[in-house]
Amino acid sequence: MARWEPNPQGRLEQAAWELFRERGYDDTTVEEIAARAGLTERTFFRYYADKREVLFSGSQDLEKLVVDAIAAAPAQAAPLEMVAAAFEAAGRLIQERRTLELVRRRQSLIAAHAELREREVMKLASLASAVTTALLERGVAQPAASLIAESGLAIFKVGFERWVADAKRQDLAHYIREALSTLKAVTAGRGRTIRREKAAPR
Amino acid sequence: MARWEPNPQGRLEQAAWELFRERGYDDTTVEEIAARAGLTERTFFRYYADKREVLFSGSQDLEKLVVDAIAAAPAQAAPLEMVAAAFEAAGRLIQERRTLELVRRRQSLIAAHAELREREVMKLASLASAVTTALLERGVAQPAASLIAESGLAIFKVGFERWVADAKRQDLAHYIREALSTLKAVTAGRGRTIRREKAAPR
Repeated sequence: MARWEPNPQGRLEQAAWELFRERGYDDTTVEEIAARAGLTERTFFRYYADKREVLFSGSQDLEKLVVDAIAAAPAQAAPLEMVAAAFEAAGRLIQERRTLELVRRRQSLIAAHAELREREVMKLASLASAVTTALLERGVAQPAASLIAESGLAIFKVGFERWVADAKRQDLAHYIREALSTLKAVTAGRGRTIRREKAAPR
Repeated sequence: MARWEPNPQGRLEQAAWELFRERGYDDTTVEEIAARAGLTERTFFRYYADKREVLFSGSQDLEKLVVDAIAAAPAQAAPLEMVAAAFEAAGRLIQERRTLELVRRRQSLIAAHAELREREVMKLASLASAVTTALLERGVAQPAASLIAESGLAIFKVGFERWVADAKRQDLAHYIREALSTLKAVTAGRGRTIRREKAAPR
């Protein structure tokens, strides 16, 4: 219990996760989250636009970190490598801020609620757009900038899913790198992407 | 005016586009769309879950076409080529069904309304998921299947945007192929992706 900590946003987030666990996401109100944190609804809305946003706390920090990492990447780096490295850094931020258990609870909630999936895809679309802008600012031309941004998002999403499902407790960054090398293999038409034994003849 | 045509869905769609043009998307109600089409609200809801869905009419046909094209692709085709070819076919379907003027009006409406952008990203996420499943059924392993699906969506989205913005009236399929070759170049670290004159030294 962190009720007496000075950090109101952290208290709201912790209260929300406690209540989601106790009574479920649907049956938890903003009023109850604020009350559990010892704060007012007005304070809640100073930090979050709605109940959904509690699950996406930190998404602005993550977007900023990714954009800053692209801006600061060595000039000679290939753009896709810049983006992959930026997402590896994002992966480290996620692992610093949330336990794997919390990440998994969050993913289960998102999977179970259409309104949360909707919010998530909008956040990812916003991130793709920010990455495109960061690449354009590094002098990458279109349509390469958009394609690299979307591919970067793809390796982040796929790496993230595999990390969440992983039993071996490897770092998220490991799965992001793995997804990058798989992407390179499939676009080059290389790699053991087909499970030959299951490919049906047609 | 197609008011007396037997096709209720086509009449609803045409009525909706007329009303969106006359009074704007926000100020058009489902009741008005139904009335203009000479139909009841009940009939409207038989075809569309809500007003937003009118803009995404045909998205199920498009998803089915893409999935079927992947299922029917030659066994020796590289998976990313299968997906790109499926999206080229989707591009031809779009060009058969909508004029470029209507596509552009639709894109402007989506850009201007958060609720429509939200619906669009959900449709694209559903399409990515359907493509992943179709690839798994063709024997493509994970994480390659998800990465190829996401990359395929990226070339479709980027190709689509360039087609809509294009003054030269090339086919959508042309821009999808162009996006595929750009994607291959950037993942291979090849290609003139950097506008050297603007790349700031860091």
